[in-house]
Amino acid sequence: MKTFQPVDALVYPRFSGIPTFMRLPIVTDPHLLDVALVGVPFDGGTTYRSGARFGPREIRVQSALVRPYNPVMKMKPFNTLRVADYGDIGINPLSIEDTYQKIEQGIQTIIDAGARPFAVGGDHSISFPILRALGKKHGPLGMIHFDSHVDTYDEYFGFKHSHGTPFRRAVEENLLDPKKIIQIGIRGHLYDESDFDFNREHGITIIPIEDVFEHGISYVHKKIQELGSGQFFMSFDIDAIDPAYAPGTGTPQVGGLTSFQALQLIRGLKGIDFVGCDLVEVSPPYDSSGITSLLAANLMFEILSIL
Amino acid sequence: MKTFQPVDALVYPRFSGIPTFMRLPIVTDPHLLDVALVGVPFDGGTTYRSGARFGPREIRVQSALVRPYNPVMKMKPFNTLRVADYGDIGINPLSIEDTYQKIEQGIQTIIDAGARPFAVGGDHSISFPILRALGKKHGPLGMIHFDSHVDTYDEYFGFKHSHGTPFRRAVEENLLDPKKIIQIGIRGHLYDESDFDFNREHGITIIPIEDVFEHGISYVHKKIQELGSGQFFMSFDIDAIDPAYAPGTGTPQVGGLTSFQALQLIRGLKGIDFVGCDLVEVSPPYDSSGITSLLAANLMFEILSIL
Amino acid sequence: MKTFQPVDALVYPRFSGIPTFMRLPIVTDPHLLDVALVGVPFDGGTTYRSGARFGPREIRVQSALVRPYNPVMKMKPFNTLRVADYGDIGINPLSIEDTYQKIEQGIQTIIDAGARPFAVGGDHSISFPILRALGKKHGPLGMIHFDSHVDTYDEYFGFKHSHGTPFRRAVEENLLDPKKIIQIGIRGHLYDESDFDFNREHGITIIPIEDVFEHGISYVHKKIQELGSGQFFMSFDIDAIDPAYAPGTGTPQVGGLTSFQALQLIRGLKGIDFVGCDLVEVSPPYDSSGITSLLAANLMFEILSIL
Amino acid sequence: MKTFQPVDALVYPRFSGIPTFMRLPIVTDPHLLDVALVGVPFDGGTTYRSGARFGPREIRVQSALVRPYNPVMKMKPFNTLRVADYGDIGINPLSIEDTYQKIEQGIQTIIDAGARPFAVGGDHSISFPILRALGKKHGPLGMIHFDSHVDTYDEYFGFKHSHGTPFRRAVEENLLDPKKIIQIGIRGHLYDESDFDFNREHGITIIPIEDVFEHGISYVHKKIQELGSGQFFMSFDIDAIDPAYAPGTGTPQVGGLTSFQALQLIRGLKGIDFVGCDLVEVSPPYDSSGITSLLAANLMFEILSIL
Amino acid sequence: MKTFQPVDALVYPRFSGIPTFMRLPIVTDPHLLDVALVGVPFDGGTTYRSGARFGPREIRVQSALVRPYNPVMKMKPFNTLRVADYGDIGINPLSIEDTYQKIEQGIQTIIDAGARPFAVGGDHSISFPILRALGKKHGPLGMIHFDSHVDTYDEYFGFKHSHGTPFRRAVEENLLDPKKIIQIGIRGHLYDESDFDFNREHGITIIPIEDVFEHGISYVHKKIQELGSGQFFMSFDIDAIDPAYAPGTGTPQVGGLTSFQALQLIRGLKGIDFVGCDLVEVSPPYDSSGITSLLAANLMFEILSIL
Amino acid sequence: MKTFQPVDALVYPRFSGIPTFMRLPIVTDPHLLDVALVGVPFDGGTTYRSGARFGPREIRVQSALVRPYNPVMKMKPFNTLRVADYGDIGINPLSIEDTYQKIEQGIQTIIDAGARPFAVGGDHSISFPILRALGKKHGPLGMIHFDSHVDTYDEYFGFKHSHGTPFRRAVEENLLDPKKIIQIGIRGHLYDESDFDFNREHGITIIPIEDVFEHGISYVHKKIQELGSGQFFMSFDIDAIDPAYAPGTGTPQVGGLTSFQALQLIRGLKGIDFVGCDLVEVSPPYDSSGITSLLAANLMFEILSIL
Repeated sequence: MKTFQPVDALVYPRFSGIPTFMRLPIVTDPHLLDVALVGVPFDGGTTYRSGARFGPREIRVQSALVRPYNPVMKMKPFNTLRVADYGDIGINPLSIEDTYQKIEQGIQTIIDAGARPFAVGGDHSISFPILRALGKKHGPLGMIHFDSHVDTYDEYFGFKHSHGTPFRRAVEENLLDPKKIIQIGIRGHLYDESDFDFNREHGITIIPIEDVFEHGISYVHKKIQELGSGQFFMSFDIDAIDPAYAPGTGTPQVGGLTSFQALQLIRGLKGIDFVGCDLVEVSPPYDSSGITSLLAANLMFEILSIL
Repeated sequence: MKTFQPVDALVYPRFSGIPTFMRLPIVTDPHLLDVALVGVPFDGGTTYRSGARFGPREIRVQSALVRPYNPVMKMKPFNTLRVADYGDIGINPLSIEDTYQKIEQGIQTIIDAGARPFAVGGDHSISFPILRALGKKHGPLGMIHFDSHVDTYDEYFGFKHSHGTPFRRAVEENLLDPKKIIQIGIRGHLYDESDFDFNREHGITIIPIEDVFEHGISYVHKKIQELGSGQFFMSFDIDAIDPAYAPGTGTPQVGGLTSFQALQLIRGLKGIDFVGCDLVEVSPPYDSSGITSLLAANLMFEILSIL
Repeated sequence: MKTFQPVDALVYPRFSGIPTFMRLPIVTDPHLLDVALVGVPFDGGTTYRSGARFGPREIRVQSALVRPYNPVMKMKPFNTLRVADYGDIGINPLSIEDTYQKIEQGIQTIIDAGARPFAVGGDHSISFPILRALGKKHGPLGMIHFDSHVDTYDEYFGFKHSHGTPFRRAVEENLLDPKKIIQIGIRGHLYDESDFDFNREHGITIIPIEDVFEHGISYVHKKIQELGSGQFFMSFDIDAIDPAYAPGTGTPQVGGLTSFQALQLIRGLKGIDFVGCDLVEVSPPYDSSGITSLLAANLMFEILSIL
Repeated sequence: MKTFQPVDALVYPRFSGIPTFMRLPIVTDPHLLDVALVGVPFDGGTTYRSGARFGPREIRVQSALVRPYNPVMKMKPFNTLRVADYGDIGINPLSIEDTYQKIEQGIQTIIDAGARPFAVGGDHSISFPILRALGKKHGPLGMIHFDSHVDTYDEYFGFKHSHGTPFRRAVEENLLDPKKIIQIGIRGHLYDESDFDFNREHGITIIPIEDVFEHGISYVHKKIQELGSGQFFMSFDIDAIDPAYAPGTGTPQVGGLTSFQALQLIRGLKGIDFVGCDLVEVSPPYDSSGITSLLAANLMFEILSIL
Repeated sequence: MKTFQPVDALVYPRFSGIPTFMRLPIVTDPHLLDVALVGVPFDGGTTYRSGARFGPREIRVQSALVRPYNPVMKMKPFNTLRVADYGDIGINPLSIEDTYQKIEQGIQTIIDAGARPFAVGGDHSISFPILRALGKKHGPLGMIHFDSHVDTYDEYFGFKHSHGTPFRRAVEENLLDPKKIIQIGIRGHLYDESDFDFNREHGITIIPIEDVFEHGISYVHKKIQELGSGQFFMSFDIDAIDPAYAPGTGTPQVGGLTSFQALQLIRGLKGIDFVGCDLVEVSPPYDSSGITSLLAANLMFEILSIL
Repeated sequence: MKTFQPVDALVYPRFSGIPTFMRLPIVTDPHLLDVALVGVPFDGGTTYRSGARFGPREIRVQSALVRPYNPVMKMKPFNTLRVADYGDIGINPLSIEDTYQKIEQGIQTIIDAGARPFAVGGDHSISFPILRALGKKHGPLGMIHFDSHVDTYDEYFGFKHSHGTPFRRAVEENLLDPKKIIQIGIRGHLYDESDFDFNREHGITIIPIEDVFEHGISYVHKKIQELGSGQFFMSFDIDAIDPAYAPGTGTPQVGGLTSFQALQLIRGLKGIDFVGCDLVEVSPPYDSSGITSLLAANLMFEILSIL
């Protein structure tokens, strides 16, 4: 198996060279890959601050600090998985509908070649076309979802597609199995007490941030285990994490996870069968010193370590 | 005639109070107005950096420094015109088509009440629905257009509406009379030598930046006079001005106008019959120390002084 | 009872419109209000970094993300209280004495109409004239005070009024009952071991940050209950919170509260009879990505939920 | 004559060491000096954005790039003048009146020792107590004044002292001879057409920015010569320069001087008998990349070259 | 004993004056000092982001907020130790070898005079020449080392000296006793599983961040006590702390200490015999609002309190 | 001839994809190229602010806005020249000597393949090894040099190689013919009147900025023509341009060129036989809104248009 390794930082220092995800080679043939790191630079689904269109570009830049060995998991993900920078899906900033088609097609191509997509957003609206491609192939999926928002709203401005609606659409289209969805880090004010009705009615598990702080990381891991086995999608919205650690996001919500908690939460997911994942809502224009993109790159590496 | 005056800065200092355009009152009945300062916070037509959705909000904030007397023009525009902050048109960040309807309606309401709209963008795509409302009423208009780009492209990503296409659409729909369009400050690289074909074929006058620097401000004013009389629209894209003076914009272009040249250019437009105007493409996330929004606010005041 | 509701974010997106506190209407008649959100943009009492004069303006801007339902408290404060943006008190940046008169008068007007003031600073010097108005009416008050500093110094530069002295003045004038004052989050170096003498002699309860981290949130709530019942003022200095979460402040102090701890601390204050409150020392020029103002807006909403 | 030289940049690189003005020694005995570079970090006279209190500190930092030889003037000012960093005058941020006494005393001490003060603000309100000290000794002075504002207003908020009033006060107290005052770079909107009445009535010469751009630098120099000989003060408000070149200031005004024009204007002042000068209104919190403080340091060096 | 006290903040406000460490006097004769606060502005050993050359300058600036009494330790370090700003060692930005000689000499001079050096970097490469001076005099030292990286790599780019290698060099030269080295806060990905071989083989104690979060501060203090008595060096790399609290550093690593944990960790070191210490890797160009430099200044004060 | 074209911006929007210079393909075989755009991310030769090591990375990012047709020159450089992103030369941040060898070798490889190098720095020290490779092949070259500094100093800190010395070394080694060197935009203070002695003695032509502003662009072009024909190198230090337009640089110098002047100066160089060029000293950590990198990318395109 031909794996791909990052550019050697002792020959080309970390600040040099063309920025790819984790300094991995550019590989555009998905047949050569187990996991395709693919940018999806669309932020036309945001309802407040945009800028996530620059997420893939800046996460590439900040991922230059990633090194290949994970001492906590005691493994080298680039040795056990064929991972590379697959480039970006060509989206249309002028149309969410056209973009949805392009994303679904792009992910389909990856899946058809036998690789798993690791999509880097972009805003959270991109999860829906990704799930369309994945759900059509694998049937309704479970989902581990890190976020401060549940993203199961019905409409914004009378429209069905936005960064607040992807998972209601995915449940409606039977791409996700709501009984196997867990949402971690949920917090913040709502429009109405009925905002969680959809989730309750469909049996989606919500772990509000208060439970994480009170019961600890292992409690969350136990709740995840209760979902049972099967195929899962992972969706990581960076705003699950507190704005102190992740200021560069579109709809920041105070009172969130620390970076250490996020890393620990991911480490406990080892053994789950993920058919794909995304990391979304990094908005570089609002980032300070690049710490949000850097955190995103570290979360990506940690997720790769459990894939 | 009941005019509106800014909040007295000697009672409420400039840093205090709810930020409205030039600290003018909020007036939502257009019948009370000669000129409605109206925000149009849409940036879904951008093809590169977004953020112009925050233009109206930040220009309101920075316009706190504006004072009522114009010593160069020797007049007080708030005494001769009934001007106020009309609020924002409620746009839809998820759909350019829906937004276009809302903008056209919103501008229609202002026109129908006998007021002139002064729209604050937002990206340049908003000019088209504004022109739809104005052009339907007044017939094909002339246009004084400050910009680094001609914005008469045909399509982006296979779509007809974006911040690069409004004026081709407006010419096609006979809302603008191309013979009476002048574009000032044009510069920067193009896709192809044919990029200006539409402009040439329709007789649009282009004043490249080289001509401004070589022949001076009075040359530009002479070229404007050659367009003859009639009703005009003014569209001011902030990227007409050099990024040193106006860094906060979506598609900055080096080698542009200075702020002093821009002020002088506007001052020479006195006497032209403007039925409306817009000032677009201020993108606050990319602004340094707010100087772009401050410049925009000053340009708005100067434009009010010639209306 | 006619309550006031925020602008509908599904008609006017959060980035649009004239920024008021939590997108509530502007209501300048205090008789229509239970709680008046009132800006007090004075920072002439700061001894180090200024900029808090822009606190009200920027907190208005960032409060656009607030939504009406509090899922932790399970209530909608805007339904049970008549709350609106009352505008700013017209202060005098050139004189602390003149400003004190203006603040006292402004607060008096609110109280006289039967409303409770929620003042948004500005620096901590504004608490004294607010307490003058409130204490005169209600007699010596208790106080829940979040801060890294005790603010009971006697003088700065030979002057009695500054952001370090308001609560000594208030105790001296019998506006506050020191036995019913609790100060939470106190930390940082002092000028001398005698700095806390005033507090000790008058029986003010200090909860240093070490106690919060060691004994937990419930310990603090227990200490608050020990103060007994009666009428209270709440004063929240944003520098109670760590600079990682709240960099935008004038005299930041490392080793502070997290944003989650702050939210939990406020939630436990339900049932206390507050006659007014303030939130002070947000200094936007030192804020990164607006996270301090955003946190302040969230704290305000949480405080409204317990009023 | 014992002169003072900057720290050798070839032993201690420019980024190292304790930051003093132009890396000169700290000399607190004014008898050893011809020119005392003295910080006056007071911004309690500002009516909009504060922050100029950090002017001296940041200009010290950025002045590390200054080198000793002026190739345009062909001279080394540190060889012909005894210049050093005299430290800051201890001002009172809580009181403009107390500060005025301290500034006047501080400048008096410098003058009495036979040295000339070069004050670094701070906001423009500091010019008045400086002129009190200088004017009392030298009689009514002429003044070369670079600014976008005339700063001869009567009152702000009912108070006589602020950054908008120093020169009216100085004329009233006969510290300045209005016939020998010239104000260069004036521009921007005014409160009323009567704003310049005081200047006109007293014969103050105003050179609006339009005249500088139209007639050139030599025209300004000619107008200065027409003031005749005598003793002069120089007051340089950094907002004379365009915000593109000097964003870090409290009340920026678009359409101003370029940095090159400012340097040329100063160079032409050689031969004038200056008894002191100030450079004010640099506000570091609003500076981008330190370019305003760097420009201020360069202007200071250029001014030293003509003293 | 003549001690040195900070400039009185009630005469010269914290924003005024020439910035020295903690506003202490400049004392260049080490015989007058117990502890010399000495800047070492070298960042030529960095392998990723540079900028630490501005560490001493900016930490001086931000240390203006430090006050003399430590209420947790109940003592005034400036009363029990003669501490002052010793200035910077003149380093050579063009050569690490030349710089190493200059640092060793500079530290030697301090030691020879009987003072202890407290070096403020600069990047971590400066620790090696400091240890050369200290180790030669005191024999192999123990070390309390706060960091996210172990810094015991052998080579970068084929070179033996960099910010990743100082402690391997120091162990090789018998300047440090590896059995008495403890490294606290270690985390982040590695090049290879063999990266810690050197540490294991030599008996260096590593406390990974997971142990700090799981077992708490007192566990770390117990592990430190197990090292036994003797003379120690303390090396504090600011990247031991999470980027949320300390963004301004060259190779930030997510998932780190909080500022409160860092303070508590230092407080428990009382009683250890430190012959010197350094605080390194503060990189001001990447700092947001100066919070990293401020934290560094507070850590310095806390360390002084246990010296 | 197989040319290379930028990624189509109508398929992959400008904000998407892996950032290469001008979105050109990565081509690492120099035989396929006429001009190799090659990054040289070394800033170990800086004597003040570093950060230019991130120049290539950020200029790649900002060059996304470049379009292929130059309407002023009326040509498409990517059609007449085979240009691509050649990647970066692997430099050694720990050693200027080792880096010099690597740069010389890297450039040699390009030249040997018959391509011309266009190096993107990095600081100005990189010009010397580039000239070593070019000068050895082509004999002593002429040079068009844009800069605020002459960079012909002899030593810094006792060392012969730095960003202030490359051209003295190049003249000494007969790589440059001093009679054919012209330096444009020179300004700023010097160490001593003798600083230009080397230049005068060797007949290097200096065009100080005063001459550019007084005599205009055509004067400079005339002086360049007077150098006669032959082979030339072009070295463009971004600090030739004023900090308002190019704040992101290591040793900014006020009073410089505007961006428009710089473009015009380059356009006049058509017809000169350039064997290579570099663009240096862009330091992204000090850039505001990326305008310096954007300007650099535009200058590169303009230079390509005359090659």
